[in-house]
Formats: sequence, C-alpha cells, structure tokens
Amino acid sequence: MIKDLERMFSPKTVAVVGVSRHPDKVGAIVWKNISRGGYAGELYPVNPNLDQIDDRRCYPDLASLERVPDLVIVAVPAAVALTVIEQAGVKGVKNALVYAAGFKEAGEAGARLEQQLIQLADRFSINILGPNCLGFVNASCSLNATFAAVSRRPGNLRFVSQSGAIASSLFDWCQATELGLAQCVTLGNKAVVQENDVLRYLHDRAKVTLTKAERVGLADCDPIGFYLESISAGREFIRIAKSVSRVNPVFIIKPGRSSAARQAMRSHTGAIAGEDAVLEAALAQSGVIRCQTLEEFFDLARAFAWENAPDGPRVAIVSNAGGPAVISADAVIRSGLTMAELSNETKQALAQLLPRSASILNPVDVLGDALADRVAKAAEIILAKQQADVLIVILTPQIMTQIEKTAGLIGDLSARYHQPIFCSFIGGSLIAEGEKKLNQARIPSFRFPEQAIRAVAAMWQWRSRSKDTAAAPAKPPAILINQVAVESVIQHAKLNQSAMLDAEATSRLLAAAGITTPVTATVDGYDEATRFCQKYDWPVVLKLSAPGLLHKTEVGGVMTDIKNSRELLQAWDSLNANIKRLEVSLQPQVTIQIQEDVVNGVEVIVGAKRDSTFGPVLLFGAGGTLAELIVDRNLQLLPITLSQAAKLVERSKIYALLKGYRGGLPYALGRLDELIVRLGQLIMAEPQIKEMEINPVIVTRHDTFAVDAKVLINY
Amino acid sequence: MIKDLERMFSPKTVAVVGVSRHPDKVGAIVWKNISRGGYAGELYPVNPNLDQIDDRRCYPDLASLERVPDLVIVAVPAAVALTVIEQAGVKGVKNALVYAAGFKEAGEAGARLEQQLIQLADRFSINILGPNCLGFVNASCSLNATFAAVSRRPGNLRFVSQSGAIASSLFDWCQATELGLAQCVTLGNKAVVQENDVLRYLHDRAKVTLTKAERVGLADCDPIGFYLESISAGREFIRIAKSVSRVNPVFIIKPGRSSAARQAMRSHTGAIAGEDAVLEAALAQSGVIRCQTLEEFFDLARAFAWENAPDGPRVAIVSNAGGPAVISADAVIRSGLTMAELSNETKQALAQLLPRSASILNPVDVLGDALADRVAKAAEIILAKQQADVLIVILTPQIMTQIEKTAGLIGDLSARYHQPIFCSFIGGSLIAEGEKKLNQARIPSFRFPEQAIRAVAAMWQWRSRSKDTAAAPAKPPAILINQVAVESVIQHAKLNQSAMLDAEATSRLLAAAGITTPVTATVDGYDEATRFCQKYDWPVVLKLSAPGLLHKTEVGGVMTDIKNSRELLQAWDSLNANIKRLEVSLQPQVTIQIQEDVVNGVEVIVGAKRDSTFGPVLLFGAGGTLAELIVDRNLQLLPITLSQAAKLVERSKIYALLKGYRGGLPYALGRLDELIVRLGQLIMAEPQIKEMEINPVIVTRHDTFAVDAKVLINY
Repeated sequence: MIKDLERMFSPKTVAVVGVSRHPDKVGAIVWKNISRGGYAGELYPVNPNLDQIDDRRCYPDLASLERVPDLVIVAVPAAVALTVIEQAGVKGVKNALVYAAGFKEAGEAGARLEQQLIQLADRFSINILGPNCLGFVNASCSLNATFAAVSRRPGNLRFVSQSGAIASSLFDWCQATELGLAQCVTLGNKAVVQENDVLRYLHDRAKVTLTKAERVGLADCDPIGFYLESISAGREFIRIAKSVSRVNPVFIIKPGRSSAARQAMRSHTGAIAGEDAVLEAALAQSGVIRCQTLEEFFDLARAFAWENAPDGPRVAIVSNAGGPAVISADAVIRSGLTMAELSNETKQALAQLLPRSASILNPVDVLGDALADRVAKAAEIILAKQQADVLIVILTPQIMTQIEKTAGLIGDLSARYHQPIFCSFIGGSLIAEGEKKLNQARIPSFRFPEQAIRAVAAMWQWRSRSKDTAAAPAKPPAILINQVAVESVIQHAKLNQSAMLDAEATSRLLAAAGITTPVTATVDGYDEATRFCQKYDWPVVLKLSAPGLLHKTEVGGVMTDIKNSRELLQAWDSLNANIKRLEVSLQPQVTIQIQEDVVNGVEVIVGAKRDSTFGPVLLFGAGGTLAELIVDRNLQLLPITLSQAAKLVERSKIYALLKGYRGGLPYALGRLDELIVRLGQLIMAEPQIKEMEINPVIVTRHDTFAVDAKVLINY
Repeated sequence: MIKDLERMFSPKTVAVVGVSRHPDKVGAIVWKNISRGGYAGELYPVNPNLDQIDDRRCYPDLASLERVPDLVIVAVPAAVALTVIEQAGVKGVKNALVYAAGFKEAGEAGARLEQQLIQLADRFSINILGPNCLGFVNASCSLNATFAAVSRRPGNLRFVSQSGAIASSLFDWCQATELGLAQCVTLGNKAVVQENDVLRYLHDRAKVTLTKAERVGLADCDPIGFYLESISAGREFIRIAKSVSRVNPVFIIKPGRSSAARQAMRSHTGAIAGEDAVLEAALAQSGVIRCQTLEEFFDLARAFAWENAPDGPRVAIVSNAGGPAVISADAVIRSGLTMAELSNETKQALAQLLPRSASILNPVDVLGDALADRVAKAAEIILAKQQADVLIVILTPQIMTQIEKTAGLIGDLSARYHQPIFCSFIGGSLIAEGEKKLNQARIPSFRFPEQAIRAVAAMWQWRSRSKDTAAAPAKPPAILINQVAVESVIQHAKLNQSAMLDAEATSRLLAAAGITTPVTATVDGYDEATRFCQKYDWPVVLKLSAPGLLHKTEVGGVMTDIKNSRELLQAWDSLNANIKRLEVSLQPQVTIQIQEDVVNGVEVIVGAKRDSTFGPVLLFGAGGTLAELIVDRNLQLLPITLSQAAKLVERSKIYALLKGYRGGLPYALGRLDELIVRLGQLIMAEPQIKEMEINPVIVTRHDTFAVDAKVLINY
C-alpha cells in the first residue's frame, strides 16, 4: 500500500512527546533542534511532569492537545512508546516517529514489542518512522527532527540511511566540507515505513526548496544516497529507483558481500547467483550506482550534489606536477574513462601560454613554478574550447604555488563555464585552506586524484545508464512456451514427492518450453543401447540418472565420445561398475540414459533461481568445464526480452568464443537468445519451479542443445 | 659501480653555491633551511656578489674555500650549474646536489646539458643528485637540503621520490598528520645518482637516530617508500629491495599501467608480459608492496611507520555502530584478511561489560551510547586476551560519543599492549580533534574504515612475503639442456637472416633443450603424408609453416583431428587451397608439416621474453583457445627452479584443470615443471633468443608436448 508521507516529513503541526529540560536527554535535544531550528509550524511539547518548557505551555498528554498534530515525535523509551502510539492512534494521528531502541534489534522481548508496534500502526493506520532511528531532517520546512547536530547550510543532497550512526558521520562530514542537505531520513528497524515509501515520497512529493542564490554552484539535480543493510521489497525498490534515477542520481552503499559467500551450494546457479550478485545485477538494471566503500559513497554524495554528471567520458587534466598527472592519467584509463584529445588550436593556445618545457598534451603540465594565473588560464583554454566532458585540476603545494588564489580562480571559472570541474589538491595543512575555498565555490575537491576520477567514473556510469534506461521499453515478446504442457509436467512430478525432477520429467519440461535437447533414451540393457546407435549414428554419450545425483562427472557417471560398438561395450561395463560404487540407497533408483553426442559446440550455462529479495533471476555464462575456470556470471532479473537476452550474452566472457573465434564463423546466437527467453518464460509461468539450471547448453553453428538440466521444484 | 653516498647525505661540511638574500630565491630558502635547521656541520655560503650572509663570510667561489666540502649544493640555473660542477671537480669535491631544471626534461638542448653533466661526474668521480630535483632531507644530521618547508618532527619514515612535487605533498601531509621523516631523497632526472644507489645507502649506511623517547609509539622498523616513474636497473633494484624488505618494509607507487596497454603486439608473450605485468611480478618476487593509489601510498606510509605489521591475518573490530562494523567485516574478507574468532572466555568478558543488545561476536558492537570507557574496556579485553593479530576501533560521532577521550584511552592501550591498533573515526569536524589525539599517540587513524583495512592487508602481505623470501634460497638446479646443441642451432639459424626460426630449427632447438614435441615431419607431397600416418597412427594434424606466419589458425593453416585417409585427403586439399590465399610473397616459403595429434590433454602456454628493465622473464598460463577467454598471466623473473616452477603453475587459473578436474586424475605436473625449467635455462643460456613462446604445450596425464612454438632471435 502506498503511504502518504507528505504530512510526516512536512508537517504543519508537530507534537513532541517526552520533551525534557535535562540537556543530555533525547527529548531535550530534539526539542531544541526543532524549536530553535527555524521550524515555522505549530509545536506542542508534551510531558506530564512539566508545566512549561521555554516559556511555552507543556501538555500532559496527546489527548489534551487542541488539534490533531500532523506528526507525533515520540522521545520516550520503548515500553512507554507503545502507549504513546496508542494514544496517538486514538487521537487520530497519522504520522509518528519513534527514536527508542530496545525493539527487534534487542532480542526476543524487543521483537515482541515491535510486533505490537506494527499492530498499532495497522489498527490506526499510522505511518511510523523507526523505531531505533535517529529521526529525519527536512530543510524545506527547516525541521531537524533528529537528536543530532545538523548544519543548516542549504543544499540539494538527500540521504536515506538505515543506520543512525552513518547519518551522524555524514552530518559531521557535511559540516566539515560545507555540503548542504535537503532531506535526510533514518529508517532504523523499518517496522512500518520502509525505504520504498521514502524513495517514492522523495521522488513524488519532496521539494528541494532553494533560492536562486542558494542554488548557485550546485548540480541541476537533487541526488539521493542510500545506506541500506537490507532491502525489504527488492522488485519494488528497483522499479521505483529506475524511474527516480532517470531524473536524479541514486547511489547506494550496501554491505553484505562476504556473508553471501557463506551460503550453501546446491547447484552452480544457487552458489553463483548469491544474494549479492543478484543485488548487483538488479541495481545495474535500475540505473542505481553502487558504491564499494564508505569513502566512495561520501565522495560521490558531494560530487553529485555540486557538479552535473559529465555528458561523456572524456577527461582533461591540468596539473602543476608531472607525477600526479601521470598517476591520474593511469587512473582515468583504469576506470573506463578516456583522456580527451586536445585540438591543435587548443594545443597552440596552451603553447602560447605555457613555458617551453610544459606539456601541452593532456594531461597538461603547467610546471611546478606555476602561479595561480597560469593554472587558471590553462584550465580556461580547455573549458572555453570545450575540449573535454570533465576537467580535473591537480595541485601540489610547491614553493611558488598560490593555493588559495588558485582555488578562487577555479571557482570563478566554474561559475563562468558551467562545465563539470573537479579538483585534487594533494597534501595536508597547506592545501587545507585551498580546499576550504573550493568547498565554498562548490567545487568537489579530493585529497587524492584517484578519488576524483572514481567519482567522475561513477557519475558517467549514471549518466550513460540513465540514457539506456530512458529508452522506450521493449514490447514483451510473444509467449513461446506451451504453458499447459509445462503445468502438466510439474503437477505430475509433484506426485513423486521429490525436490528434483527425474530425467524423463526434465525432458518433457524442456520440450514443453520448446528447448531442444539431443535425442535421448533411457535404456534397460546393452542391446537397447545398440539399437539406439543403429538408429541415430555415432558418437553417443552414456550417462547415469538418479534423483539427487547432482554431479555425475565426479562419480564416473558420464561416458562421452563413444564412437563404435567396441567403445559402447566398454563404456557400458564401466558405467555399471561405477553404479556399484554409489551409495547403496541410491543404486536401485539409477537408470542409464543414452544420448546423441553434440560435437563442435561451445558449452554454456543457462540457469534461473528465485531470489528472496528480487524474485526470479536468470544466469548466463560459460558452462561445462570452462565454468570451473572462468568466473562468468551474468545475471538479469526476469522477465527478459530477446534483445535483453542478446545483451546478456554479449556481456559474458564466453561471447569471445560464441561470436566466432579468430575469424571463424559465429555460433547460433539467435537460437541461444531464444533459449534464454524460453527458460525465462518457463520460470515466470511456473512458480513451482524453485531453481533450474541447464549445464551445458551446447551451442553449435546452427542450433542449441540442452544437454543436461536440473530442475528443483516445490513439492 | 657502488657509490659511497655517506658523505653526500651525512656531510660534515657543506658549501651552498648561489646563496641569496632575496627571500623567494631557491638559494635563499635552501640557505635558511640548512643554516637555521639545526645542522651541526660546517657551512660555506658561496656567491661572488655577496660579501656576507647572516653575519657569515660569503665565499666568491669554491676555489677559495679553505677545505674541500663533503657536499656542494648547487642552487644556480642550469647553464651556470655546469661551471660550478666543474669547479667542484677541480676542487676535489665528491658529492653535489643540483636543483636546477632545464635539463633532459626540457627538450634537446637540455638533454645535451645533462650529457655534459654526466661527463663531468665521470671525469671527476662526483656523485650528483638531480638535476631537476628538490634535494634531500636527513633528520639524523638535521639537514634539510631542500627548498621546501619540512617539519622537524622526529620519525622513522624514509621516502625516495623521483618527483619533487609528490615530496612537497608528502611534506605537507606529514605536517598535518604529525608523521616524522627520517630521510627523504628526491631523485629528479637521475642523471648520476639513481634509486638503487639511494636504496643501497639507506639499507647499508643510513641511520635512523631517534632517542628512546622519540621512538615511543613507532614501529620497530624503518619503512622505505618509493615514488618512481621509471626504474633504471630493474634486476639490481629487485635484488637490493629483496634484501632490504626482509628487514624494513619497502612500498612503492609507480604509474604507467595504461601506457603498457598501448604497446604493439607481436605475439601473446609480447603483449601479455607488458612492462607493467613484469614489474608487478618482479615486485612480488622481491617482497616490495605496490600501492595502487596515492591515497593508499600515503596511508601505508603512516601505517608502516607507526605500527608493526601484523603477525597473522586475524582482524578484530570494536565499533560504536553496527553499520560501519558490517561494512568493515565485508572489507576484511574482501581484502584477504580474516575476522578473528573470539574465544568463549573473551565473549563472556565482553558480555559482562556490554549492554544486552550489544554484539559480543566479532565485529564487537559496543552500541551508539558507549562512552569512552566502554569502548576502551572492550578493546582491552581483546588485546589482553590476544584475540587477534590486529585491532581496529571504529567510532562514529553520536550524541554520547566522547571522541577525544576515546582517542586518549586507545593511545594508552597501544602503549600498554604493543599490539597493532588502527582506528577509523568516521566523520568531519567533530572527529578531527580525536584524530589529532590519535596522531599524537602514533595510532594510524583513517577517515574511512576500508582505508585502515587496506593498509592492514598490505602490511600483512609484506609480513607474509618477507617470511617467504627469508627462506633459504634453493640450490640452482642441474643444467638440463644441451647448451652446445642450442648454440649450434642458433648459429646456424642466424645465417638465414630471419628474425624467426623456421619449423625445423625450432624443432631442433626444442630437442636440444630436452622439450618433447609430438612426432612431426615436413612433407613434400600427399604420399609422404600417408606414409607418416601408416608409421605413427591416427589421428594426425596438418599445418602450414612459413617464416613470419604467426597466427596459423586464422588463415586456415591448421587442420586437426584427422582420423583416416579420407579426412587426410580432404585436409590436404583444403590446406593447399588456403596456401593460395596467402600473400603472394609468402607462398613460395610455405611448407606443410604433419604431426601426431596429442589428445586428452590440457593446453597451456609457456613463453619467455627479455624485459628492457627486468631482463628475462617467463610466462605461464592457459593456452590454446582458453587463452582468449581467461586472463591467466603468471610471470616469473628468470632463472627459475623446479619448486618455483611448481609454485608458478599452482598460481595459475589453469591449475584448476591440471590438478585433476572434479576428482579426475592429475595431469603430468612434474613434467610440466621440468619443461618450464628447461625453457628458462634455454633463455638464460642463449642471449640471442629475444622472445619465445610455446603455445600450446599439451599436458597429458603422463607427459608434456610442445605442439607449436615460435622463436624470435637477434640476427
């Protein structure tokens, strides 16, 4: 259900329950933050033990208020908070904020309290922010509803954090770098109001109200940064984020990579498409930029807030030192950006300006003795002639270097040319004054040039992705699979009470999905196998099949490249010998299958699983033996169209072979795309399939063959 | 020749030529830096236009000095500098420092000047530092022979930089973070004194003279950081660095990765073993830590200077916030370190100390309301019970957080427990005061926790590598190859005036090196090919051979898996048709070779080339088609022993197949190691071989076969 959070975050009337005169208490700090922070709405302090606070009348409880406040701020401990929420509900309040810890995060008793809180929210239809949160800040109505010190500098950055501590760090960092916040919401335990509600609110309703003067030096957009430890409804998050990020950059830091590795492995797809890889794919599809480190996150916040994302990947560098310039050029290439080629005219202009031994190629080295004027003039030549999509100015504190003056002149250039400019003043004490001046001019400056380049690369990634996602969505493709037949296979299979489909059911399922398999038969004896070969020609493959037998190769259960009767007999005997080595319980269930051998093809893997956060997701990559060597995990949330399938294949490492190796002919890419779409449709149509993997799919020059498949179902 | 730089860097008498009273001049700044910097030796100011400076007698020239100074500092422009150096030579001076720019870096005229400088150095046996440098600092004799402001804080860090600008930035950064320098040498154009001379001096002669009090809080070692744009004598650098880095950490930042990619491709080995990859391998072999970014370099400088490298990879984290703790745990795993497992006793102690909802597992979350005392006590439990190899303390500035007090208590713990402690206080203005206190206590603190973890990971890498390189060097293996036969093949081949060995010479070379090849014959006609098959059995391979024909597969010059006479005839015809499509000039030189087909093996590549900086280097990795898909470039400077070869193979990605895939039998690893050693010996023994590549070497269960080889020679 879509929550209307307009009155939560822009209330006209606010009651603060638990106001206090003791300066260390949350109730006192919050009261001070709001009442002295410029908030223009009506304020009701509530505390049964106080008559007055700050010369205002203090109310004993919510019931005694003359009006129903838009927002109730609950600054009391957990146990009391429930009573207050109930009173708020009775009063007809629709929005509340609960700071108290001691809920879900504090063990079982706390979890019960949180359950009660959720029930109250349901009963009275109250939006509750928190519990266990730091509150929120909304600069557009001068409301600091947190118990932290937050600078009132105007700005355009929005920040949503599950952690109050990270918000505290950000506030402190904003103070130091003079970065202004428009809105900041901390989510805490997310009992009722979740990130999707806030993201939707920020997109649809929240205003960044800055005067023209306050907007000077800021980017044209209002970026949104997320710190999340969990995502509550992944599909919805991606859907909203996709439409938000077309307009405003959305960037996120989400820990949890390493825990993903600990997951149990049931099949390749299970292990490969671990939670984090799915998240990564989902974010990429939605245009959200994922940060790898906290530093990158903080750096990117300021970069997006102050500069427009570049319209292209071309970087120009002006530096007063050769060393850092070379390091930076390296970093530019490594990050996927390019070094701008300067025009002859530009080079001539630079040659006129600079001493003979300066470099007039990009990176432009204005030399160590450059005064501020020379640095600025070189930068201006690049800007005036529009030689790059981004300009980075690098300064080291040498004996002649005019640090502050250079910063001032760069600020002027930024105001005049409206092109993205980033700085890296490398050093410590001396350059700190220059950085301060750059902050005032809203030029993102970084202690080390690689930080600047990393931020620029992320911004360009956002810009290029938002162009991608803005393209008209493709029509859903015609249904290719036989849904009735699929349903019938699954219904029948469920009767077996087994999590894994047997070979026959798997074949029928693939057939129903229109996925070609090599001709295969289950054979009862050697004679039957011989007849198969007479009918279908050599070479053939023999393999074991049994429910629960996942890795056949390891147990000697696959004999390939059988070219004649003699080899068939040998293989038959070995296979039967190997059966005897299997677990005794497994042996009676084993059958032997014979199959045409598909030769001269490339082995790939196509799989799908259902992610608990993001739902059905498809995996494509190198298969067979190659899967052991190449990390080639390309994921896409389902559903998938033919053109998306083609892009997925192009993104894979195995594409180097598929497209035709060393001038050879290409493999059947069209057929492969189709197989991917068919598998995707199968998963979307049949919710009983938990997980499925075809490995290998052999792609020949003319067709694809699903050689081996595993299907796990709910039973 | 080994240079004695003792009197250069610790002179007892110094002449400064070009002293000046004009405060902006280099000569004035240098004079002030030395004369007022506490230098206790004798000082001679020289300037023909001054009688006195600072109440001292000023000498008109070097000739008029009463004594021969240990060091002449030349603070005059390039053209005059040469005259001064000549006068110094005549006077008998053995060490000089030249600041002036305008030499090699400034074009042709400058390069000529530099050549003259080098000739003077040779003629008079003068060690010259520079030109185009910032000078040096040696704290052990209180000598700041630079024209930069350098803090006089005592310290143990040594720094060698080709760039003066980077040194300026480091000085400024040291000032801000209170990091003390023992020695800093800038190399500039490296005309005479090069990095190896300085590294040898720092290792053999330089003293880090700190009092016991000054040593408090510092690491037990004296780390050496390098900023280099080029390495003049790579083998020598690696040799010295290897022995230095057993005692003191050596770390380096060297740009130039991206330019490596621009190099022309002659063969796989040529492209793969690009300059940067060789550097990477060389550094790894020598125990030198390579930094990826300037930030990492600066961070690591402080980390090595202030904390001992951990003795193991186990990290414990104490944090006042859950979010950053999770982010950090992720980063720990990602960086190859491990999260320490706390003992039950430790967990009980933490449980007694901390509130119920705190986390007593690692990362330990002491909760947002923790006062300094709680943070310190939790940290102390970990330290006292020696639960980890490194402790990282993370602090966010929350409402109750006692930032400075916490920093103070951590300083006390560090002094008491002598275990590596790192901090990350995340934020801006508020936490700056805490950082200051940590700096004073010599606890490396980082604005973001990932920086701390990256530094710890690099330190652990150094520690574990220095354990490795400290192991007794293996005896050189017995010579396996027939050197006389090798020499004869090459001498004979040189007569052909061709850069590439033809098929026959290649075969003979491999035979001389004892490298097995499949039986191969050059055949003149189809009948001869048939006879080969009768003698050696099917399947066979047919392939073209011609000087300069590098990529046979692309031109249809290789026919594999020929199983019978019919297929042989087909292949023969196709091959002859393909010859007609080759360049006309090539056609007369083409011959056809027939070869046993080696089946059921793993294809690898073994190659070698001569790097201009590091000399002969060997490449091992996935070969054949796989080389197109897998980036598997494992390099080792030659010579190589059997056990090093085995390690090289184990490091490769293809090892996953070679060691026996999915429970299968292993391939002939011993034979492969031997082949690698044989190729290494071949390259070391025969300097006429410029580059060589065997691709594929097919490794079967029992042997290795060099199926195709290219050998480039000097002719």
